[in-house]
Amino acid sequence: MENTNAVSGILLVSCPDQKGLIASVTAFIHENKGNIIGLEQHVEPIENHFFMRVQWDLEGFEIPSDQFEARFEVALARPFAMSWSFFLSNERPRMAIFISKYSHCLYDILSRYQAGEWQVEIPLIISNHPELENVAKNVGIDFHCIPITLSNKPEQEAVALRLLKKYKIEFIVLARYMQILSADFTRHYPHRIINIHHSFLPAFPGAKPYHSAYQRGVKIIGVTSHYVTAELDGGPIIEQDVVPVSHTDLVADYVRKGRDLEKVVLARAIWRHLNRKILVFKNRTLLFS
Amino acid sequence: MENTNAVSGILLVSCPDQKGLIASVTAFIHENKGNIIGLEQHVEPIENHFFMRVQWDLEGFEIPSDQFEARFEVALARPFAMSWSFFLSNERPRMAIFISKYSHCLYDILSRYQAGEWQVEIPLIISNHPELENVAKNVGIDFHCIPITLSNKPEQEAVALRLLKKYKIEFIVLARYMQILSADFTRHYPHRIINIHHSFLPAFPGAKPYHSAYQRGVKIIGVTSHYVTAELDGGPIIEQDVVPVSHTDLVADYVRKGRDLEKVVLARAIWRHLNRKILVFKNRTLLFS
Amino acid sequence: MENTNAVSGILLVSCPDQKGLIASVTAFIHENKGNIIGLEQHVEPIENHFFMRVQWDLEGFEIPSDQFEARFEVALARPFAMSWSFFLSNERPRMAIFISKYSHCLYDILSRYQAGEWQVEIPLIISNHPELENVAKNVGIDFHCIPITLSNKPEQEAVALRLLKKYKIEFIVLARYMQILSADFTRHYPHRIINIHHSFLPAFPGAKPYHSAYQRGVKIIGVTSHYVTAELDGGPIIEQDVVPVSHTDLVADYVRKGRDLEKVVLARAIWRHLNRKILVFKNRTLLFS
Amino acid sequence: MENTNAVSGILLVSCPDQKGLIASVTAFIHENKGNIIGLEQHVEPIENHFFMRVQWDLEGFEIPSDQFEARFEVALARPFAMSWSFFLSNERPRMAIFISKYSHCLYDILSRYQAGEWQVEIPLIISNHPELENVAKNVGIDFHCIPITLSNKPEQEAVALRLLKKYKIEFIVLARYMQILSADFTRHYPHRIINIHHSFLPAFPGAKPYHSAYQRGVKIIGVTSHYVTAELDGGPIIEQDVVPVSHTDLVADYVRKGRDLEKVVLARAIWRHLNRKILVFKNRTLLFS
Repeated sequence: MENTNAVSGILLVSCPDQKGLIASVTAFIHENKGNIIGLEQHVEPIENHFFMRVQWDLEGFEIPSDQFEARFEVALARPFAMSWSFFLSNERPRMAIFISKYSHCLYDILSRYQAGEWQVEIPLIISNHPELENVAKNVGIDFHCIPITLSNKPEQEAVALRLLKKYKIEFIVLARYMQILSADFTRHYPHRIINIHHSFLPAFPGAKPYHSAYQRGVKIIGVTSHYVTAELDGGPIIEQDVVPVSHTDLVADYVRKGRDLEKVVLARAIWRHLNRKILVFKNRTLLFS
Repeated sequence: MENTNAVSGILLVSCPDQKGLIASVTAFIHENKGNIIGLEQHVEPIENHFFMRVQWDLEGFEIPSDQFEARFEVALARPFAMSWSFFLSNERPRMAIFISKYSHCLYDILSRYQAGEWQVEIPLIISNHPELENVAKNVGIDFHCIPITLSNKPEQEAVALRLLKKYKIEFIVLARYMQILSADFTRHYPHRIINIHHSFLPAFPGAKPYHSAYQRGVKIIGVTSHYVTAELDGGPIIEQDVVPVSHTDLVADYVRKGRDLEKVVLARAIWRHLNRKILVFKNRTLLFS
Repeated sequence: MENTNAVSGILLVSCPDQKGLIASVTAFIHENKGNIIGLEQHVEPIENHFFMRVQWDLEGFEIPSDQFEARFEVALARPFAMSWSFFLSNERPRMAIFISKYSHCLYDILSRYQAGEWQVEIPLIISNHPELENVAKNVGIDFHCIPITLSNKPEQEAVALRLLKKYKIEFIVLARYMQILSADFTRHYPHRIINIHHSFLPAFPGAKPYHSAYQRGVKIIGVTSHYVTAELDGGPIIEQDVVPVSHTDLVADYVRKGRDLEKVVLARAIWRHLNRKILVFKNRTLLFS
Repeated sequence: MENTNAVSGILLVSCPDQKGLIASVTAFIHENKGNIIGLEQHVEPIENHFFMRVQWDLEGFEIPSDQFEARFEVALARPFAMSWSFFLSNERPRMAIFISKYSHCLYDILSRYQAGEWQVEIPLIISNHPELENVAKNVGIDFHCIPITLSNKPEQEAVALRLLKKYKIEFIVLARYMQILSADFTRHYPHRIINIHHSFLPAFPGAKPYHSAYQRGVKIIGVTSHYVTAELDGGPIIEQDVVPVSHTDLVADYVRKGRDLEKVVLARAIWRHLNRKILVFKNRTLLFS
């Protein structure tokens, strides 16, 4: 469901399942004069764990937004041992893009940005190659080239981290960034780095997946957007999509067909992240609609 | 989510949207010691109408199942002007199958029935042709041949209705039944007759959709399962699916490819109906997951 | 199959089916020292009509490209009553883009153009609105605003036709151009105007298809790229694709999901047109792989 | 394209690519008064290997079917160093089914067999469990229970091989047969044993793929039909298909959704095998349309 124009509150909750969870949260909102406009919940039966996303109209809601967190913590989060976060629907998160030389995902993101498709700020693009600097400049986004070699990765990642801090970046999109981020780096942005991998994970992780797919003779290829963790191509999967291939397709055709999937599936992951529609539990994502 | 083995209650609700609906229903279940194992809600913003499916464990629930309806009516349904229904998860609805000469959907349903895939009773098969009688007999289901001609439809439909009543049929599946049921007949089973139409509705309603699709040169064909209403192929759509075709496919290939879709998409609709996961509103369905 | 770098000849042929067609054409190429690198043929059995696309390496081919047409006409085309065309694989057809206010298809085409995805020249963009002029200018393409009103269509189409002639345009892409071209206009570019329509044709032709799809309650929406003919949304379909929707999606979600399909399905049609992989017969397309 | 009713010849050819291959084969057919009704060819550019399937009407063809092989061998196969095979379109290959306890693929195959969907004879079903004997008996197919334990596999496979020989079986379908055939066994039926594996290979080979897919948190699950080789789940892939899953789906839902894919994707592979539309090259399949 698209957000409406009025400001609403969004609450993401997870905790061990217990009786009365939904009743308690919805009563809390209702008693404070909030009108629920969306609620999704899920119980993972194996772990017996509870998850919920609830969104409500803030017009007439009696708890001021800046007091909500303190009030909710005492009233519900602590008693139920909840992990939780609260967002306002009109926030514009600050996002950085990491790129290398491939332009299709970058162009796609920038065209959505220019067209106003997303509620986001993109103040920073980092690349390990200078080629696409002009593309960034043309839309008025700061571009920093931070080349990575075998020997300078720790220093260069430190440079990147300082930039991310300076630009107050909340989450990072790897738009076909051809470097592997260190475990140390990823730890700074837990579930806040989104990557697009050009295979249907867990098949063909790592380098040259289209070549591997061709070699294996699969009849369908895919792409996967996921949060980056310390394990290469092993983080929680956000979105996947596929396209058929036939024996008449060569690797160059895989690349051509996959390119269109990559940009679209990456964009879907960004959209869902921006709309606070993702929860991560045990390396799996829950995607709210 | 599959039903677990323990008996649970399933409540389907729709009403004009108001503040406090979810809080009231969940509080009602919680206060009577029910443990909610699934809840989905939706607000249709154009009509400002509210929909909910909630399922809860009946173990320990303090309202006996046979008193639930009366209690809920007074406590919540009347105050909120709800349309609603209540089911037990261990019911086995009684289903009739209507067929003509095509066997693929019939075989598919019967093989699921024999394998115990569904929680259903199938005591009756009605056909306007005698050909598939043996298929029915082999699995021990009563078969009645009720041939329809241009002139005898009202009488024959009356015969069918008497049989349906005698067999206590709750819902009907048209498994490639090649007759159009009268508005009069369908009125007896509102949103309880499921049809499979071999086109991607609303494209190509009526007869010979594969021929029409071929003629038009579409690149994808589809099938549609829907509830039958008085308007031909115009009822609420339950499930749809598609398959690509190319210029190398002739109508016979459309038929072959479509056949596999038809049986699978019809089965999905039956599964969803049996699991009380469908609400109808203004000729559109809401499908709960 | 992607074209390789060496120049090759591409021959598209259609004619009434007769014995010996493939043998004759392949012998003609072989005897003139051409090495066939791709051949696809199809016989439409209802009309008994033959279609072929054959591509061969021109290195060592003994007929100079500028004499091929004359030689082939005499040797084979006339005896077999063929409709046919001959292309060189290194041609860069000249394409014009028609737009209105929606930018997503335009951005997508331009980013492919800048990245060198396609073998094409795009010297001209025509719009009936001034809004996207800067987007065109930024990539150095001439932009002409030709506003259309109820009363000035014939004159303005004449203006457009003069521009198309001046820029030596071979084919036109309607990238969400919100005007209906007159039958008179389309006659100048038979099977050389590609449109993207935001429905799964033949369902929901004309205006506001996403609204109609929502209203009808379909479970899958689609888009269709097709050649423009005098009949609105009735021309030969090139590519279609679909995406599931659910009751939680509003029209705004249909628009968001459909936007990604539109640009990708339009791009696929352009790619196939550029690669001479389309034949049209009786308002249906044959798509070569 | 579906076969028409008249008998036709089908020739499958592969050899190193050379100039004049298509011209020579089509000339051979044409000069002997054969009318080509379908021809597909492909050149694998990396290996520079040529593949072709050609089908022609035998009415009026001057070489008697029983002399074709000898004539073709001398005229073309030997000079061009072809691997090739020749079939008549009206053959009914003899197929055996191997099963365990799951019935859905078996029911699906038998219902197609009873409905006459395929041109095949199925005289033999082998199972390592007795449970589905009645299903086989009901359709009049011989059923042999050959239980496999850790210690008796070689002997029991020998029993099976004798039965296959006795029944003149040409190819085998593993319809969710839960045993791994020995390399020794598979060597008797090279590219003539079709398996259905319930994952999107190469992801999740081996046991319990739905559990692994759930664990990994993929958003799409798939199934794969392939020819069985000595490497477990490593043989040439014939068909694959996928279905989306969400966090609301448990393993039981994966099983339910996957079941429908399994039977349909297995059936597609059988259909293509029966229609002589598959060539294998370097562990990859070429699928003719």
